[in-house]
Amino acid sequence: MYIGEKYDVIVIGGGHAGCEAALSAARMGAKTLMICLYLDSIAMMPCNPSIGGPAKGHIVREIDALGGECAAAADASTRHLRWLNTSKGAAVRTLRAQCSPRRYSDHYRMALLTQRNLELHQAQASELLIEDGRAAGVKIKTGQSFYAECVIIATGTYLDSRIYIGTTAHKSGPLGMVAATDFAKSLRGCGLDMGRLRTDTTPRLHYDTIDWEALDCQRSIDEPQAFSHFGEKKVYDEMICGLTRTNARTHEIIRKYFGKSPLYTGKLGTIGPRYCPSIDDKIIKFPEKETHPIFLEPITPEGKEVYVQNFSTSMCLEAQFESVRTIKGCERAHILRPGYAIEYDFVMPTQLKPWLEAKAVKNLFLAGQVNGTSGYEEAAGQGLIAGINAALRARGGEPFVLRRDQAYIGVLIDDLVTKGTNEPYRMLTSRCEYRLTLRHDNAAERLCQAGHDVGLLPDEKYEKYLAAKEAEERERIRISEYKIPPSEEVNEKLSEIPSSPLCEGMSAADLLRRPEVDWKFVYDMTNSAAEEEIFEKISNELKYEGYVSRQQRQVEKFRRMELLKIPPYIKYGELTGLSDEGRGKLAKISPATLGQASRIPGVPPTDIQLLWVAIERGRRGADAAK
Amino acid sequence: MYIGEKYDVIVIGGGHAGCEAALSAARMGAKTLMICLYLDSIAMMPCNPSIGGPAKGHIVREIDALGGECAAAADASTRHLRWLNTSKGAAVRTLRAQCSPRRYSDHYRMALLTQRNLELHQAQASELLIEDGRAAGVKIKTGQSFYAECVIIATGTYLDSRIYIGTTAHKSGPLGMVAATDFAKSLRGCGLDMGRLRTDTTPRLHYDTIDWEALDCQRSIDEPQAFSHFGEKKVYDEMICGLTRTNARTHEIIRKYFGKSPLYTGKLGTIGPRYCPSIDDKIIKFPEKETHPIFLEPITPEGKEVYVQNFSTSMCLEAQFESVRTIKGCERAHILRPGYAIEYDFVMPTQLKPWLEAKAVKNLFLAGQVNGTSGYEEAAGQGLIAGINAALRARGGEPFVLRRDQAYIGVLIDDLVTKGTNEPYRMLTSRCEYRLTLRHDNAAERLCQAGHDVGLLPDEKYEKYLAAKEAEERERIRISEYKIPPSEEVNEKLSEIPSSPLCEGMSAADLLRRPEVDWKFVYDMTNSAAEEEIFEKISNELKYEGYVSRQQRQVEKFRRMELLKIPPYIKYGELTGLSDEGRGKLAKISPATLGQASRIPGVPPTDIQLLWVAIERGRRGADAAK
Repeated sequence: MYIGEKYDVIVIGGGHAGCEAALSAARMGAKTLMICLYLDSIAMMPCNPSIGGPAKGHIVREIDALGGECAAAADASTRHLRWLNTSKGAAVRTLRAQCSPRRYSDHYRMALLTQRNLELHQAQASELLIEDGRAAGVKIKTGQSFYAECVIIATGTYLDSRIYIGTTAHKSGPLGMVAATDFAKSLRGCGLDMGRLRTDTTPRLHYDTIDWEALDCQRSIDEPQAFSHFGEKKVYDEMICGLTRTNARTHEIIRKYFGKSPLYTGKLGTIGPRYCPSIDDKIIKFPEKETHPIFLEPITPEGKEVYVQNFSTSMCLEAQFESVRTIKGCERAHILRPGYAIEYDFVMPTQLKPWLEAKAVKNLFLAGQVNGTSGYEEAAGQGLIAGINAALRARGGEPFVLRRDQAYIGVLIDDLVTKGTNEPYRMLTSRCEYRLTLRHDNAAERLCQAGHDVGLLPDEKYEKYLAAKEAEERERIRISEYKIPPSEEVNEKLSEIPSSPLCEGMSAADLLRRPEVDWKFVYDMTNSAAEEEIFEKISNELKYEGYVSRQQRQVEKFRRMELLKIPPYIKYGELTGLSDEGRGKLAKISPATLGQASRIPGVPPTDIQLLWVAIERGRRGADAAK
Repeated sequence: MYIGEKYDVIVIGGGHAGCEAALSAARMGAKTLMICLYLDSIAMMPCNPSIGGPAKGHIVREIDALGGECAAAADASTRHLRWLNTSKGAAVRTLRAQCSPRRYSDHYRMALLTQRNLELHQAQASELLIEDGRAAGVKIKTGQSFYAECVIIATGTYLDSRIYIGTTAHKSGPLGMVAATDFAKSLRGCGLDMGRLRTDTTPRLHYDTIDWEALDCQRSIDEPQAFSHFGEKKVYDEMICGLTRTNARTHEIIRKYFGKSPLYTGKLGTIGPRYCPSIDDKIIKFPEKETHPIFLEPITPEGKEVYVQNFSTSMCLEAQFESVRTIKGCERAHILRPGYAIEYDFVMPTQLKPWLEAKAVKNLFLAGQVNGTSGYEEAAGQGLIAGINAALRARGGEPFVLRRDQAYIGVLIDDLVTKGTNEPYRMLTSRCEYRLTLRHDNAAERLCQAGHDVGLLPDEKYEKYLAAKEAEERERIRISEYKIPPSEEVNEKLSEIPSSPLCEGMSAADLLRRPEVDWKFVYDMTNSAAEEEIFEKISNELKYEGYVSRQQRQVEKFRRMELLKIPPYIKYGELTGLSDEGRGKLAKISPATLGQASRIPGVPPTDIQLLWVAIERGRRGADAAK
């Protein structure tokens, strides 16, 4: 690195989005520079040190299948692992890991430090450089400029951030770091429309001051598992989590301090994460609830800190100290760090193209919390896509976009750029209309090919994927041919499930199609030599077959609409018949495809029909003119 | 911990001074609260991750003998260890360790988190609370107050700190943390006279971008060693350091950028550490020197960072990047973090009593870099003394002061409170007039008793000390009685040294007195079963005997003066015959003893004589009146 040297891609920010962005750009061969505020804070977890869970776990698997690092970082740092949503069916079932934040950060840091084509430099970005309407580089606080073809902004919650505790507020990034005030100003100056959001975190308790004996405990699963498709499966049992609850006394104390709650008093007017509300917010909104569950999650052995899951708050310290001690097991608890709210600038994501490039500034990409999302996984997923697209742009390639039927990451980005958000956007399985086909177990099948085609997933991993795919295919054939006889022994076992007896022979595949028959039962019965994970995946697919084929037809229809690009000759101002609201929204969002247009809130189906006709007419005109 | 709860001692700051202060106060039974800005930055090493070296290593041993933690933290984190000053004699010989900053910090953090009577809370101090002229507690940024009998300020370089790089400056603490601006203001409001100092650090290079093959390398010693008297000795060989040098080209580039050097241009007018000047400073001050030695010291495996010892600088980034690459082995080096200067407020230490209490504010203690010192060890030593004295004050005890003939820590604090400083004060063996008796090898003998008496050194360690002392005494007797015969074999060996042959039998002790005879020679010859360290210590004492007894007489004279307290009836304004300068200085410093008075720069010996007479006259008057 020399000052003034030109890069292909500059990434600003070393959090979850920035790390994935820098790694994927560099892995695709782009000469990349990552600028971050403080090297020791790379991929830090300022909130819950957890990776995965519903929808988020799916994103982690997708990042891994595309060639990203998030799953490997989680596997390298997991201390406690569980399956979530097991009762809700295989499609939405996913892993959730409690990680060591230090090991997670170390994994990313080492990946960055040893990545070819990638340089790191600790500096504070102060100004985005734009030349002729396109991103040109970044100026840092000490006055130097770094230039690049593409710039990726992944500044998380640092933009003009303020910390709120009780009735006080002060300018600060997370972790006591300085806020990025100059850079926020520079972005506003680029014409980007920005808003404010907030997020809260919980107080951290001293491990030794909790009465663990008094609590119900949650253990890690004892089967070897991993997020990554390509790593080793391990058993993680470094710690247990404690289960407890708030009670009437807790709520009473919190109410007593409402006058000093920045939320209640309206001092903190910005919108926080809907699916992760602070405890005071819950008590305001659900006054009838007498108790809320609390999970005590040990964070990290070196710091003896415990995260109080479901107890995030920006209440004054008095309220935090007093209310925590009303909770069973926490009667003597000592708060090492208080909970707080952080309020920050974000960029309205409807200003982005589906490949996360700013519409207003060519070659400028944005990824992560700066786009209004919440969560490490959501940030990492965006970072990966921004990194891929910046690298493609630098070499003159076409944009890379994941469809909604292809990946949760596709749903996430499509939601953001199409609908925007006015609250921290969190990924949920319910946001995904194709969740029977977008499963935790088939992420490799969905995305390894795309990852390899785009040049991110390396040959070694791709071959591993192909081998697994072949083994799966062989097993699929084997069990469709494997005949199970209607023997007394088999029928007796079936009656235990209970499942109806066989009158004649049945293929193992057909037996698996029965909803009540567990994959393990058939796995053992057919003496399968396949990996359990593969067998379970085949079983899931057989059970879902009917639903899946119906979903497949929807996907096809969707795909046709999605493939139908809206050509530049469509002028919404001139299209007769459009509703006023639809016309305005379409002009503002300027969707790339008919599919995207159809998802803009407030655009009625009749407008989509009109638009369709207009595109088809234009296309036929163009064809006729050839 | 509850808000409003009253503590015996509150420590503000979690650096080297704050950690020792909090641990020693709590270990002595004081109910202690440590408030620090960010728990993950406890005992961080923002500059060279090294502990020990001349004079500093002595302080570490002294802290250990008194019951502090610094030596154990160093032993737990050492990656590379060397003896320094071996050619200059046993008295000034000492260990220097290169540490893992993370392991060092973790050791302190765990010691704090598991210490009885001690609570930690992450918060930013904003105001010192004073009631009736005495320290009463501290207010934190979120508005709450914590109360205590005594308050210890150990805020390091955070007070109103600014970072300088090239022509730019911005408000910031070290490590990208927020500066303590409010608290600095609050201290100024208490009537404390404050000044500005600065210190610099070096750029950090990416380990993999250095050509290690091209460099001379320095290995760790291969004998098991330890700083602590009470822990296990180990061999540390985790890394090697590289030796290289600046050259004419390096200096030329640095000169080229003088126009952008905050030092050269006078933008940074504050005084930096004299014994650790920045590279640009060296080139300004010693233009004739064509080369300066550089040590490349790998810091930490997780970060792949290398410290460029002797290359600290606040030059602009261009100068740093270009000049580093002129150095052999660094031709391709990549700077991960730039060097910078930090300028900060310090409190003029002449405003302190010899036990580190502020003269103007009762029960307020100050320790560490805030008192104008430089170095982790100097900070830790002061922290320990402040912690002891705050705990003693809280229980109504008398102050604890180490004399100059007793410890380097005594010299350090006496220098500070007597002479003050206008540059970052660093401990040097040359500052110590009794360095033959203040050795690395006799720290336990000098201080374990005092540490135990004051209630800091626990029984377990004290007994270990007593046992070692006994073993030493036994060995001393044994070798004074052990007769070495004038045999041919012995004389042959002596001739190899060479040392004159024995004509008649000689005691092993007498043989050891010969300067040219190595302790190991006699150790082997007498088949000693004592620990090598003990034998070497006895040998040192025998060799130094003559000098030591002469020094002892000086010590006695000094001690008499030191014991002579200056009573409150001495009014400098009324003492006739004093020089004008002496009168002014004595009134300003208000020394506690005649010894301290004698060391105030600018007070002539004649004034000390007059003062002595006045004290003696007053004492005799008082005795006669009884």
